[in-house]
Amino acid sequence: MGLSDVIAGPRNEQGIAAAIGILKQRFGEYLQTGESQRQQHGHTMSYMPEQWPDAVIFPANAKEIQDIVRVCADHHVPIIPFGTGTSLEGHLNAPRGGISVDISRMDRILTVNTEDLDCTVEPGVTREDLNVHLRNTGLFFPIDPGANASIGGMAATRASGTNAVRYGTMRDNVLSLTAVTADGREIRTGGRARKSSAGYDLTRLFIGSEGTLGILTSITLRLYGIPQSIVSGVCPFATVDDAVKAVIMTIQMGIPIARMELLDTTAVQAINAHSGLDNPETPVLFVEFHGTENSVREQSASFDEIAAEFGGGPFKSASKQEDRNRLWKARHDAFWAFTAFRPGADSLSTDVCVPISRLADCIRETREDSARSGIFAPIIGHVGDGNFHALVFFEADQPEDVRRMEAFVVRLTDRAIAMDGTCTGEHGIGQRKQSALRQELGPALDLMRGIKMALDPDDIMNPGKIFDRPV
Amino acid sequence: MGLSDVIAGPRNEQGIAAAIGILKQRFGEYLQTGESQRQQHGHTMSYMPEQWPDAVIFPANAKEIQDIVRVCADHHVPIIPFGTGTSLEGHLNAPRGGISVDISRMDRILTVNTEDLDCTVEPGVTREDLNVHLRNTGLFFPIDPGANASIGGMAATRASGTNAVRYGTMRDNVLSLTAVTADGREIRTGGRARKSSAGYDLTRLFIGSEGTLGILTSITLRLYGIPQSIVSGVCPFATVDDAVKAVIMTIQMGIPIARMELLDTTAVQAINAHSGLDNPETPVLFVEFHGTENSVREQSASFDEIAAEFGGGPFKSASKQEDRNRLWKARHDAFWAFTAFRPGADSLSTDVCVPISRLADCIRETREDSARSGIFAPIIGHVGDGNFHALVFFEADQPEDVRRMEAFVVRLTDRAIAMDGTCTGEHGIGQRKQSALRQELGPALDLMRGIKMALDPDDIMNPGKIFDRPV
Repeated sequence: MGLSDVIAGPRNEQGIAAAIGILKQRFGEYLQTGESQRQQHGHTMSYMPEQWPDAVIFPANAKEIQDIVRVCADHHVPIIPFGTGTSLEGHLNAPRGGISVDISRMDRILTVNTEDLDCTVEPGVTREDLNVHLRNTGLFFPIDPGANASIGGMAATRASGTNAVRYGTMRDNVLSLTAVTADGREIRTGGRARKSSAGYDLTRLFIGSEGTLGILTSITLRLYGIPQSIVSGVCPFATVDDAVKAVIMTIQMGIPIARMELLDTTAVQAINAHSGLDNPETPVLFVEFHGTENSVREQSASFDEIAAEFGGGPFKSASKQEDRNRLWKARHDAFWAFTAFRPGADSLSTDVCVPISRLADCIRETREDSARSGIFAPIIGHVGDGNFHALVFFEADQPEDVRRMEAFVVRLTDRAIAMDGTCTGEHGIGQRKQSALRQELGPALDLMRGIKMALDPDDIMNPGKIFDRPV
Repeated sequence: MGLSDVIAGPRNEQGIAAAIGILKQRFGEYLQTGESQRQQHGHTMSYMPEQWPDAVIFPANAKEIQDIVRVCADHHVPIIPFGTGTSLEGHLNAPRGGISVDISRMDRILTVNTEDLDCTVEPGVTREDLNVHLRNTGLFFPIDPGANASIGGMAATRASGTNAVRYGTMRDNVLSLTAVTADGREIRTGGRARKSSAGYDLTRLFIGSEGTLGILTSITLRLYGIPQSIVSGVCPFATVDDAVKAVIMTIQMGIPIARMELLDTTAVQAINAHSGLDNPETPVLFVEFHGTENSVREQSASFDEIAAEFGGGPFKSASKQEDRNRLWKARHDAFWAFTAFRPGADSLSTDVCVPISRLADCIRETREDSARSGIFAPIIGHVGDGNFHALVFFEADQPEDVRRMEAFVVRLTDRAIAMDGTCTGEHGIGQRKQSALRQELGPALDLMRGIKMALDPDDIMNPGKIFDRPV
């Protein structure tokens, strides 16, 4: 890993100019080549040297996406799909230039089938918009990565977030999808059946493919009944180990907990300061229970007992929506809370995921590493899944600091892989984790490369992502 | 569709003879070419003209599988993986001859990680053996397709069964796997992390690939805590429509029901006669609830209310293990019960899956079709998933009867696809449903074909399955 992986590849100047010319005629004002649009589409919240696209295009429907792909295919021009720009590992960069396809105009909710608990949406619908739309149906879409990301982007990066311990990730909650592939055809991976054994699992192949196999044009999602009762709460522990032990026991007991988030002491201090909260400045678990009133009461009582067994508590819970919202807002605002702790510093958000029995070790070693390296890197974990984030602060204009940060991230992914985990639980590979992926998967990476070459032989679909050599 | 799809392809006689010669030297008694072994490995419970392999080989470990694959690859000889022989759509036939790789000797449970609720097993471990092994850990593996299938076979066909409505299918319960691919390499698709965004989802690609991309050599599975309390029950309804409406409401209410099986009147009559039961001879739901004692009591009461709302009941429940076992044994013995109704007849088990809102229509139209066509085809459904089976009886030595049966199955898959469902929810494509798959997926089938060509360019891995033209 290293920013050397992010250097620009060879540019097909003639092809790019020709494609932009043709598409400009076709799309008019919906194709932009101005600096601010290009910059905005090559930029994310997480530090990464920017590589702007040559143009940004705003299609209105799948047919227009097919037109764009055909023109780009004819001229061998890279295509970079763009949702809301909240990805974190360099997915949106244009290392060989090309055209950013911004799907924000494709924001229609096409169908909601309340009897079947499913809906079909265009890729530009955001998860918050979807849940607002669903409000009166009694249903909701649970996946919550924090950012108000687009459903298309969430599918493309196999996103998950705080609710995954109960409801699964995008992998588990997409029934089927449509996509425009590198040859300009639109394919549909399946229908609305809850399960299928009809050939290779193309739905899952596209989920997490980071735009390298095609552009999603619609996604059919599973929905869930809004729980009758929701209780959230915060529980402090003396150590991260104790908190994780309580988590393991909670899961082993089969308590269907909906969220279970760990914040280390540094993280708690930051969010207390930022959000005016008075959480004890020790590791804490933020938890949430969904179910009937009886079931939630029982879950909450069982968790309380388990927490006490590992020296945790007191467990403070809240059932009123405004109190719950305040609690989770603090959790979701953690990024801003940390940033306020290091004003002016650059930051990078990264994640790993390990078997839960190794989570306490992995977090402890990572904290020791950051202390030893003098790196400010508070940790927040989707601890029920063994998944945690480090937000790494550094000075991007200090090459030595950048190298130090990069080495820290490499040690983090090494550590997770050595524990039989993965270099990323939910952020994806993008540009930053290509070497880590090779290390994690070895020869299996050749299969991915074979699939990429079979489905996109000219490598026009988000080139330079996932794979550490040109495909 | 039709048996014309099942005709033998071109045979590479020289290559087959050479490969068998080399492997016989290496494997001795663990390579068999006798008629009875060949016949047994080209035969299943569901009617399909048999196409025997030329030899059956019994490897003891992944290294031996690599050796077998390398010899077969060198000589362009087909390889047909074989678990317990319980697949239903012709997956085990050898249309171009070749070698059946029986993985029954690879039956070791390699690791059980109780803290992480996972285990890693060799592919020949059966689901019942696994659960016996787990008995003292407090954990269990929930996927139950009825037959005591091998975990490798269940992964290869993306099996599910009665528990899927709560616990998901093999798709949801395999964390990662190892496989020997067509070039003889062994790859590993991931570690033991609960979730991952590390590149393409190769795990899901192999699950449901029916042996056409490689031979599984180990599978890492999710496990679950054995529920504190289990209650099973039977509830009659006046019509299939009423039963399905109760199912829809149960799912919408978020009741975490573990099993929900529909038997139509014909099916109930058959199992009553076969198992000496006295279920009312109307459509019935077999259900099961898992959870704490309180939760199960609450779930059961809620279901009772819902059933009553749609005219169902009385709901007879059982919590003692022997009563529950008796109830589910009757359900699982349905195949034998039906067979006893039509002694001497041939039968074929097939399945489709539709959005649950269309399930009552699909079942009603299918029953009308069988009545009109004079076909005995009782229906059993994993109704919580919209998935149902028809067991079609006919006389295999009467060509007209075979054609009638085939046309009935085509109409069934047409019906399911027209309802935005799938031609198979859990049995797979094999040889029988290749035309239906093409109809269901259209151009998406080309992507599958592209993947197959990329990963197995000589088409040695279970050739003649899934795809309706040579790849």
